[in-house]
Amino acid sequence: MIEVTYRFPAGVNAAKQAEIIAVGQTAGSWGAQFAHREAELRAHLAEVLAVVEQDDGTSLARVGFPEHNTEGDIGTLLTMIFGKYSLAGPARIVDVQLPETYGTRPKFGIEGLRRLTRIADRPLFMGIFKPALGLSAQDHAELLRDVALAGLDLIKDDEILGNLDGAPTLHRVRACRAVIDEARQTTGRDILYAVNLTGRADQLNARARELIDKGANALLFNALVYGYPALEALAADQSIEVPIFAHPALAGALGGAADGSSPYGIDYAVLLGTLMRHVGADAVLYPAHYGSLPFAAATEFRIRDVLRAPRERSSAVMPVPSAGIHPGVLGRVLHDYGDDVVLNAGGAIFDHPQGPAAGVRAFFAALEVVRGGGVLREDEVNDEALRVALRKWGGEHRGAA
Amino acid sequence: MIEVTYRFPAGVNAAKQAEIIAVGQTAGSWGAQFAHREAELRAHLAEVLAVVEQDDGTSLARVGFPEHNTEGDIGTLLTMIFGKYSLAGPARIVDVQLPETYGTRPKFGIEGLRRLTRIADRPLFMGIFKPALGLSAQDHAELLRDVALAGLDLIKDDEILGNLDGAPTLHRVRACRAVIDEARQTTGRDILYAVNLTGRADQLNARARELIDKGANALLFNALVYGYPALEALAADQSIEVPIFAHPALAGALGGAADGSSPYGIDYAVLLGTLMRHVGADAVLYPAHYGSLPFAAATEFRIRDVLRAPRERSSAVMPVPSAGIHPGVLGRVLHDYGDDVVLNAGGAIFDHPQGPAAGVRAFFAALEVVRGGGVLREDEVNDEALRVALRKWGGEHRGAA
Repeated sequence: MIEVTYRFPAGVNAAKQAEIIAVGQTAGSWGAQFAHREAELRAHLAEVLAVVEQDDGTSLARVGFPEHNTEGDIGTLLTMIFGKYSLAGPARIVDVQLPETYGTRPKFGIEGLRRLTRIADRPLFMGIFKPALGLSAQDHAELLRDVALAGLDLIKDDEILGNLDGAPTLHRVRACRAVIDEARQTTGRDILYAVNLTGRADQLNARARELIDKGANALLFNALVYGYPALEALAADQSIEVPIFAHPALAGALGGAADGSSPYGIDYAVLLGTLMRHVGADAVLYPAHYGSLPFAAATEFRIRDVLRAPRERSSAVMPVPSAGIHPGVLGRVLHDYGDDVVLNAGGAIFDHPQGPAAGVRAFFAALEVVRGGGVLREDEVNDEALRVALRKWGGEHRGAA
Repeated sequence: MIEVTYRFPAGVNAAKQAEIIAVGQTAGSWGAQFAHREAELRAHLAEVLAVVEQDDGTSLARVGFPEHNTEGDIGTLLTMIFGKYSLAGPARIVDVQLPETYGTRPKFGIEGLRRLTRIADRPLFMGIFKPALGLSAQDHAELLRDVALAGLDLIKDDEILGNLDGAPTLHRVRACRAVIDEARQTTGRDILYAVNLTGRADQLNARARELIDKGANALLFNALVYGYPALEALAADQSIEVPIFAHPALAGALGGAADGSSPYGIDYAVLLGTLMRHVGADAVLYPAHYGSLPFAAATEFRIRDVLRAPRERSSAVMPVPSAGIHPGVLGRVLHDYGDDVVLNAGGAIFDHPQGPAAGVRAFFAALEVVRGGGVLREDEVNDEALRVALRKWGGEHRGAA
């Protein structure tokens, strides 16, 4: 059974609305002329499992849908649970419980990313190419060389960088692949570069194969813009053998307020947790609460927990908290996440006053400090790149660790 | 240039936010090390065109983006105008102005639908198969026979009816195609049956061709669930030579309150008007304000106006107001829409007490009454099917016409 929890504002008859959903989003009503189909029709109806009024006057209604109403994918699921009904007045999906095998499993997940990066026992560090638009393929390659040689684990395109006339994606892939191969001679491993996959929807899988063929060893994908089904199709395609990093672009238009208080839409833990996990994302980016984005810590941690929930490590998805990540927050991040996390930084690497390589070194130095029980304060650390980073972006207050 | 208007709540520094969008959603910031790329970087920056505070304290900020920042499609457009920034706090997109040729044009639109249905001079009438799930292909075929012989112009699947084990879409297409051919002998024309297109994202175009090959002469597509790019790929595919009806399932999760007052998300006129028109939808379904859905008339009319805006009739998109459509509202609908509209009815056709054929006849009779200057009141009309419909669903108050 597929269990969906809807939240209704105070004043709405939640029991009545739940019934409308259970009937209107499934078989619908029928008359005596369909008496001969009674059994089939009834087998498609959903069931109202519980309606509970909360202390704040809102109500939560849990509705159980038959799994056989869908094609076992996220497209028909979304249409059923919040298609037409999303237009019926204030209602918000706050939880979706799917059978563990529903949808598509990631090909890599946490386990696969550790295998590919050959890093078993620490958080992974990821950079975001900056600036986002206007660089040449050669510019990207040079930036990549700096951070790859400094030991960075992963790097990604900015999500707005498409396949532009002035900067074709294939040129970037080719130039960067050469650097990945070159850096391997020094570091002994390949930095994973998540290339932004864009293009005509029916050709995305073929395009992914082309990018991989030309050297891409990871993909970035704006799953909400292109649709969850597009990500599911990539994940289900066994010929696409690289990890897929799902980007949350557009998620705010569905999720609303960062604390989940919007009366419409879908909770972030569903959008960026449950649905992403069941369409086969290997890693999911989402706003971190450490920086300036108004994202609630509780919202962030629900996403984290949903992504890492599967007991089989091959199905657990890597959380990638993003925005506002710099060496000074590493203690808090490790406290909140432990090791199974990708720390995703743009400015803190590429705007480091001593250059991108120093930006990377500052993160590794910060990790050492935190693991050694130290405090990330400018006047208490030895590494110069880290000192400079803490001066620029701030560190911990005394006693914060 | 691509002009996007964002609305910010009272208390937000709209000028500052507009600047953040203009930079952060394009090139981003850069340092002295990129001085040699200054011209290229600048060429990607957006421009704040205007910031105006409204009487209610909210502010509207208009931002102009360079067209060359996108791939000329809706995927890269959405990522640019509301990707990451959608997660940055309360902001709503209330208007998007695209160059007329941006994106993909419909293959049929209003003009093509009139050509296919051979109806030049009146609204088109569309039915929705009811009940939604649980019927056999043969059930569908029998329902179709009734309404096709009664002269109905179009019919569609319920949007939640996927390709289910118990009811494969191809079986339904084959059974219904036979009826379409059979009814043509009597009516002299083909009823258009919009079959719900579902399936794996990378195979949707191939699936569409398969359904067409087996007899489908129109498609229904949940564009927001599968993503606008998926619809654009269908519209751009010249081998898919049937009209595509875009369904608004999930739109409420992005659009919020029906009057457009939600502080997050995207206005319905953009979601179901502008974006649909530029991804090549031939017809767009959206909630009508005539029925029980809480949709604002002003919102509905903005969608209507955007869809029909193109001066070239081949690019104008057919509006399909849905929900609460029955013969009693026909006077109001004709007043609001004129002839270029598809009236989409489920219950008013399939739950007519005298059967679906009477449901269809009631609509035609109502059209005659309205055009003759009559009033849709049970005690003033002659047609029995219409009288029964007006008794069940209500008619006009005296003087309402």
